[in-house]
Amino acid sequence: MALQPNLTSNVTINGKDYNTYTEPSVALAGERAKTKFDVRQLTYFLDGGKEITEKLESFATTIERDPTFSNDDSYDLPLEKAREVTMKHVAKVAEYTFQVSGDVQEIARRMSIVSLVSQSALTRIRIYLGLFMNGIRGSGTDAQISYWESKGASNAKKFYGCFAMTELGHGSNVAGLETTATFDRQTDEFIINTPHSGACKWWIGGAAHTATHALVFARLIVDGKDYGVKNFVVPLRNVHDHSLKQGIALGDIGKKMGRDGVDNGWIQFSNVRIPRTFMLMRYAKVDRNGKVTEPPMAQLAYGPLIIGRVNISLDSFSVGKRFITIAIRYAAARRQFGSDPHAPESKILDYTHHQRRLLPRLAYLYAMKAGVDELLDLQYSTTSKLDNLQTSSDKATLSSVLADLKDLFAQSAGIKAFSTWATSEIIDECRQACGGHGYSAYNGFGQGYGDWAVNCTWEGDNNVLCLSNGRALIQKGLKKTLPVRCKSLGRRDIRDFDVILEAWESVSSQAINHAVALYRELTKSLNPTQAFEELSQHRFEIARINTRYFFVRAFINRIQKAKDDGTDGSIIDVLSDLARLFSLWSIEKEGAFLKYGFITSDQLDQITDHVDSYCKRVREQAIGLTDAFNLSDFMINSPIGNYDGDVYKNYFSKVTRRNNPRKNFKAPYHDQLIKPFLFRKEDSPIDRSELE
Amino acid sequence: MALQPNLTSNVTINGKDYNTYTEPSVALAGERAKTKFDVRQLTYFLDGGKEITEKLESFATTIERDPTFSNDDSYDLPLEKAREVTMKHVAKVAEYTFQVSGDVQEIARRMSIVSLVSQSALTRIRIYLGLFMNGIRGSGTDAQISYWESKGASNAKKFYGCFAMTELGHGSNVAGLETTATFDRQTDEFIINTPHSGACKWWIGGAAHTATHALVFARLIVDGKDYGVKNFVVPLRNVHDHSLKQGIALGDIGKKMGRDGVDNGWIQFSNVRIPRTFMLMRYAKVDRNGKVTEPPMAQLAYGPLIIGRVNISLDSFSVGKRFITIAIRYAAARRQFGSDPHAPESKILDYTHHQRRLLPRLAYLYAMKAGVDELLDLQYSTTSKLDNLQTSSDKATLSSVLADLKDLFAQSAGIKAFSTWATSEIIDECRQACGGHGYSAYNGFGQGYGDWAVNCTWEGDNNVLCLSNGRALIQKGLKKTLPVRCKSLGRRDIRDFDVILEAWESVSSQAINHAVALYRELTKSLNPTQAFEELSQHRFEIARINTRYFFVRAFINRIQKAKDDGTDGSIIDVLSDLARLFSLWSIEKEGAFLKYGFITSDQLDQITDHVDSYCKRVREQAIGLTDAFNLSDFMINSPIGNYDGDVYKNYFSKVTRRNNPRKNFKAPYHDQLIKPFLFRKEDSPIDRSELE
Repeated sequence: MALQPNLTSNVTINGKDYNTYTEPSVALAGERAKTKFDVRQLTYFLDGGKEITEKLESFATTIERDPTFSNDDSYDLPLEKAREVTMKHVAKVAEYTFQVSGDVQEIARRMSIVSLVSQSALTRIRIYLGLFMNGIRGSGTDAQISYWESKGASNAKKFYGCFAMTELGHGSNVAGLETTATFDRQTDEFIINTPHSGACKWWIGGAAHTATHALVFARLIVDGKDYGVKNFVVPLRNVHDHSLKQGIALGDIGKKMGRDGVDNGWIQFSNVRIPRTFMLMRYAKVDRNGKVTEPPMAQLAYGPLIIGRVNISLDSFSVGKRFITIAIRYAAARRQFGSDPHAPESKILDYTHHQRRLLPRLAYLYAMKAGVDELLDLQYSTTSKLDNLQTSSDKATLSSVLADLKDLFAQSAGIKAFSTWATSEIIDECRQACGGHGYSAYNGFGQGYGDWAVNCTWEGDNNVLCLSNGRALIQKGLKKTLPVRCKSLGRRDIRDFDVILEAWESVSSQAINHAVALYRELTKSLNPTQAFEELSQHRFEIARINTRYFFVRAFINRIQKAKDDGTDGSIIDVLSDLARLFSLWSIEKEGAFLKYGFITSDQLDQITDHVDSYCKRVREQAIGLTDAFNLSDFMINSPIGNYDGDVYKNYFSKVTRRNNPRKNFKAPYHDQLIKPFLFRKEDSPIDRSELE
Repeated sequence: MALQPNLTSNVTINGKDYNTYTEPSVALAGERAKTKFDVRQLTYFLDGGKEITEKLESFATTIERDPTFSNDDSYDLPLEKAREVTMKHVAKVAEYTFQVSGDVQEIARRMSIVSLVSQSALTRIRIYLGLFMNGIRGSGTDAQISYWESKGASNAKKFYGCFAMTELGHGSNVAGLETTATFDRQTDEFIINTPHSGACKWWIGGAAHTATHALVFARLIVDGKDYGVKNFVVPLRNVHDHSLKQGIALGDIGKKMGRDGVDNGWIQFSNVRIPRTFMLMRYAKVDRNGKVTEPPMAQLAYGPLIIGRVNISLDSFSVGKRFITIAIRYAAARRQFGSDPHAPESKILDYTHHQRRLLPRLAYLYAMKAGVDELLDLQYSTTSKLDNLQTSSDKATLSSVLADLKDLFAQSAGIKAFSTWATSEIIDECRQACGGHGYSAYNGFGQGYGDWAVNCTWEGDNNVLCLSNGRALIQKGLKKTLPVRCKSLGRRDIRDFDVILEAWESVSSQAINHAVALYRELTKSLNPTQAFEELSQHRFEIARINTRYFFVRAFINRIQKAKDDGTDGSIIDVLSDLARLFSLWSIEKEGAFLKYGFITSDQLDQITDHVDSYCKRVREQAIGLTDAFNLSDFMINSPIGNYDGDVYKNYFSKVTRRNNPRKNFKAPYHDQLIKPFLFRKEDSPIDRSELE
């Protein structure tokens, strides 16, 4: 007698029968067929044009074909192997970078591809070519820049730089660093010293294995006077055999939550002598006689550090899009539960709640891209102004550049913080949305999260950045007359872009307004520092609201611009749905709209309904919207997220090959541990009568 | 000339000078001295009495002294080694469990200690002694229980059980599993079969390396009729050499996000024959002739699964308290920034924002303990009723037990979901609160998070559980007449416990009420399934609000009871501060209070002020409150979280010894990779003239 078909998991599509194992790729193809827009055009839109897409693809293909980047066993590497493999990647990426040196935008594009392939390699390269070299170029005199370039610094020839800023006891507060650089007038040298172990340089990427030189942040001491933290180039190792220079002690920091491929280390200096000219003197200077000239605007020295924040914000998009693609493709292929026991189970992407978990975050990534592109433009224009500055520039020019820099500092602080948190949360939510399979190392979420997490901490701790952003907003607010009362939605349609923008503008101003009023009140009895401290919660809130507003505005403006540029209507439509979904979902989650009375409780319920509806609309286009990210299976590196949607076959094959071959059904420690345990014999119980 | 002291990082305490490296332990001791209550008494309160504390300590000390559990290199183990070490732990824990078999509460206490030492060992043991054995005991007849016990199942003698429920294509929807158990009348056997690869058993802990037998969930098929999923005991391996039984194929699932020590595997059955009596027949039965008797109330078979949820909720407290202790001790020892350049930097615990990040979560853990203890009591009473049930019990008794079980199911669903999410978030927030040092593997956050994350997915996916909890709340609400309008705070003090309880009761009822009204409206045009689907967002929200209310109520009731029991006033005071902090912080974050009008916007601002004030109060007692968790440094296993607060010394020593010895300043791959890279020579450029 034939087995009755198990209806809940069999499905017939166009007259053909499929089961759990064979259906997913057909299901995904069906979803893909619903796409109403030209995916290729949307990719061009995201990348910034056809030409850029083609350049990105060209480099991506080169990397994918290069055997150095084979990622078959990338999830099974122990730390030692990860370090070694990453060094191979570093050498190759360096080569690909030097090939186009000078073309800043092409380098940025190539790095965006590297960020998808290996966060560890990206970090090792960025510390050297980003932090170290930008430090030299930003804080060195022209002569110093030439000197270090001639020594091989710019192309890693007999030279490898690292960036020695943080110490065991000091991270966020750079001004509090304790390493000293004491001027010795007699020999025209600085003596670099670690006064005690708390001042040990710590977390220094590249120090453990690679670096020959370090850009050291140390306190300049001349004639016993402390001039604060300046930058010094200090040789660490002899290049021919990597032995340590005299007075240098360094070591490996070992295992981390992620990025095992990065050789973070610690460094201690015991009265290490360097020529006076190894201090970078574009701003602060020490002459042969020990005369110190302080820079006219000390903050200018930190300008180049902003690039780090911008890069990390770009990475937030780059890494986030990978994980949302995996989760959405899986959701379109996976079935679970269903309302009718005689019908196939439902695709999990069809559940309202599942849509809400994934689709607003997909929309967030599109908004994030628009926002970060805007930040990038701002950064390019500001740093080019900075580069053109001369020490002889007039005071008005200096002040104007400094004001721009301050704005960029504040804005980039919020964007860096909230974009990295968003991606952190996206990776985690996407993992959970893939159920148990999200927990398998081979689907990439575990490593992805572990690698990502540090972005919330380095290059400015997110919480510190938010509070600083909040302080800047209050300071700006103090200079302006802000509207007294919050506007309200009234009978207008919250789905209208103009209304959305007004809503965010109004609530954001109102929240700042409120914080400014509280500040004015508090400063009647407290000094400004104390008042700001009391307002921490409000500072954090206005940073959150203002940054979200920035993303909403950037996305809507971008769509408007695309419309003006004659972009295809089907693209405008789907982007508009995304922008509405993102904006309304953000309003729904942001308590300030109710608090400041822009909306009523009933209107909040309507917004919930709108979010549900936009989720349903975007759901139909979700596969096309993730396809538009243009990620190859190699970049996805997650068998449940491949383009073909054949989730179970790809996953089963990835898990059961290589490190888990089927012949290993017996534990390697069976004879040593399992058998003795299962066949153990207790000593016979003591027979007390023998002693009695 | 003497170097000027670096004032920002030097500090004088009681006339003695300290620096960044030497001060922390003195700082922590100073904080500890502020404790106004008897820490030991609070530990008794948390554990449930002096006697229990002493039992816990006795077992904790035994484990700590046992060399098997040495954790010196626990963060540096590659997967293969982690599996082996975990097997050693399993054998020892099994021994310690069998020692007290029968004493359920002592076993639970011992497991709570094991949960702190190794989540992997805990899982391996729990799958066998929890899921497998509870499955046998819950679904087997008395004769079957005796049979399997006589075969060594209850004490792991020539026997090791695993729990084969989930499949590659089915997790949450147990009823949709596809493995078949077909009755062969001729031989009086079941034929267990995996119909296609999607039905491959997947994630089965213990299958890869350890198990000799599996409790298999499979569809009972008799004469071609599908009776749904039942339980079968299937032998997997020959115990003497761990070779596979005929028809069994199995393998390793390999690397995961965490819990590397657990040997999760996959199993495929190719027409494996087992005697009919290997089907567990306490409820559904198949007799010699193939006659199937269905259980009177099928849901009763799932009763024992609830224990899993309760255990995980207990773990949420157990694991959460470890990480909050680390972050709070670190915050009391770490200084960063400060308002006065000539004064020492501030302790990070003194920052309002840092207090807000840690202290409400400390309060949450205290509330969680009260809530989970209440759940545990409910579970004990319900399962004891279940155990006393006879198939011959009258219908009224059955219905009453079933109603209790349903309540427990719904309540435990919400508690499991929100307590595991809370701990997940606590680990992550605490990691970020420790800055860069939180990212070091040696401080435990990375492994802690990776190990923990799966708790949000297994034993009922959190999102699925919340929706099911929300559905149950609406169903209950449909039967009740709920208050029409939400109460409001008015001029009352929100810090009053009675007002707090009323606030939560009122808003929770109102939210349910609102969802019920929407449900009634929707079911005018939709069927119940569709209506519930449309209400997903509301279902999720009421589950969230109701579960938070449960924790608030449980905590306040527990304090009231302690007061009635004559507990010392200083303990009552500090617990009351915690309960107020937790309740008000929860109100501040929960938009429903504003939405349903219990509070106004101005009152929300006041609540923000209250939260800030309670943070300041609790901050003074924070060290005592974490000390009361009574965790030894061995259990903490994080050098920045040790009792002595000597954060930098302990951390530096942990990082630089063992796997990162100081002599390894040169990369093992220097000669092979770094030197060839730094000394590389490009091929000379092509001289075109040679060819022209």
